[in-house]
Amino acid sequence: MRVTFLGTGAAGGVPLYGCTCAACQLAHQDPLHIRRPCSALVETAGTRVLIDAGLMDLHDRFPPGSLDAVVLTHYHPDHVQGLFHLRWGKGKPITVYGPPDSEGCADLFKHPGLLKFETVHKHEPFRIGPLRWTPLPLIHSKPTLGYAIEGPEHSRWAYLTDTHGLPPSTAEFLKGWGPFQLAIDCSYPPKDLPKNHNDWHAAIACGEQTGAQTTWLTHLSHAVDDWLLSERPDLPEGVQFARDGLCIDLTAHPR
Amino acid sequence: MRVTFLGTGAAGGVPLYGCTCAACQLAHQDPLHIRRPCSALVETAGTRVLIDAGLMDLHDRFPPGSLDAVVLTHYHPDHVQGLFHLRWGKGKPITVYGPPDSEGCADLFKHPGLLKFETVHKHEPFRIGPLRWTPLPLIHSKPTLGYAIEGPEHSRWAYLTDTHGLPPSTAEFLKGWGPFQLAIDCSYPPKDLPKNHNDWHAAIACGEQTGAQTTWLTHLSHAVDDWLLSERPDLPEGVQFARDGLCIDLTAHPR
Repeated sequence: MRVTFLGTGAAGGVPLYGCTCAACQLAHQDPLHIRRPCSALVETAGTRVLIDAGLMDLHDRFPPGSLDAVVLTHYHPDHVQGLFHLRWGKGKPITVYGPPDSEGCADLFKHPGLLKFETVHKHEPFRIGPLRWTPLPLIHSKPTLGYAIEGPEHSRWAYLTDTHGLPPSTAEFLKGWGPFQLAIDCSYPPKDLPKNHNDWHAAIACGEQTGAQTTWLTHLSHAVDDWLLSERPDLPEGVQFARDGLCIDLTAHPR
Repeated sequence: MRVTFLGTGAAGGVPLYGCTCAACQLAHQDPLHIRRPCSALVETAGTRVLIDAGLMDLHDRFPPGSLDAVVLTHYHPDHVQGLFHLRWGKGKPITVYGPPDSEGCADLFKHPGLLKFETVHKHEPFRIGPLRWTPLPLIHSKPTLGYAIEGPEHSRWAYLTDTHGLPPSTAEFLKGWGPFQLAIDCSYPPKDLPKNHNDWHAAIACGEQTGAQTTWLTHLSHAVDDWLLSERPDLPEGVQFARDGLCIDLTAHPR
């Protein structure tokens, strides 16, 4: 199983429109520091699944037939906005798995076009090709699911955005799941009262709480990047920053 | 007053994702035939206003401070989706004028960010710099307004998307308005029962009914372009096709 971070940005991304902080200036100068809408691609030899659809050029990135499914964490615009254009296309339907949410986003459910929305439920696993997905509840301002994904050769990956902390059942599941790597929401630098999203401390705590082998911080705002540039904090062992385009071969990380 | 068609496509645009019709193939081969989300830029010496915000790269096209306002015809995603990302930016608020619509689109009203939404009403003119905008009711599946725009030196431009036909009050207003050019929804080739959008005949009828000097067909689907390629119909006098990037200097067209 191979995972690619296609986007690692919080809503608004990096650079943030109109912002002149050091992190946004750096991203304007060097595309390596850009953070696009938070999303990832999960691939095995024969299967390709997109987690979240906030990239606005999905129709250019993924020619017809190149995606086996889309899996959504939730229906906030920065996680689904790439579907608005794509849906009007022609061809084989694309299944889009997502949490129970009667509202969805704008008129996606009313006019799904070539998308076929399927609701998945917490702790009820489903399969896409050789991948087994277990939806895990998260704590956010809209119904949101993270996913524990098991691929060939016991490769395991958990993707938990957007969330502030973890419900006990999610932490319990992951503790007993076996060795895995984790992508976790880290939207804020250290903050007094984080809401709807993890700050730096809460993100690291999620990694510790679940016993992840490696914790990848993602869904990062320009404020996190700016704080990192000025504070240069030590990263706890096993914690790393995701960046757009970073590709992780999980079968190359044996337990 | 100068008007630039930034996008001239119906929902889904041209090429349509996954479509292999002659028009979509042509657009894949030659970017001149691409039709992006329907929108236009209205400019005078000191004022720049965007009509509709469906382009998904607005944050790249319009650096902070480069737009005086956005004017929306309605809140369907293909007319507002570029605002989802832009809104999280920093800096001077951007006023977004639009029709009365309690729903808006997704959570734009709930989380406007740097956007400042202002509701405008049919037949109640408002000003943006030297431009006088008269909202005109249209006939669509969501509350929708067209705009009659008067600029310096009696330059006049009417922008009517999305609509199927025109309410009598809109046609009456335009007939008595004085010489003007018209951009009109032409989403379908000739069709038995067009709905929510003009077909070819209805679009041309709108031009005739209002007495426009020049009628520019816009909001064109791949089906219109494909029909044009195969049928090559004669264009009635005074009717022209808009294309992405086409720029019209209205002060260069004296009455």
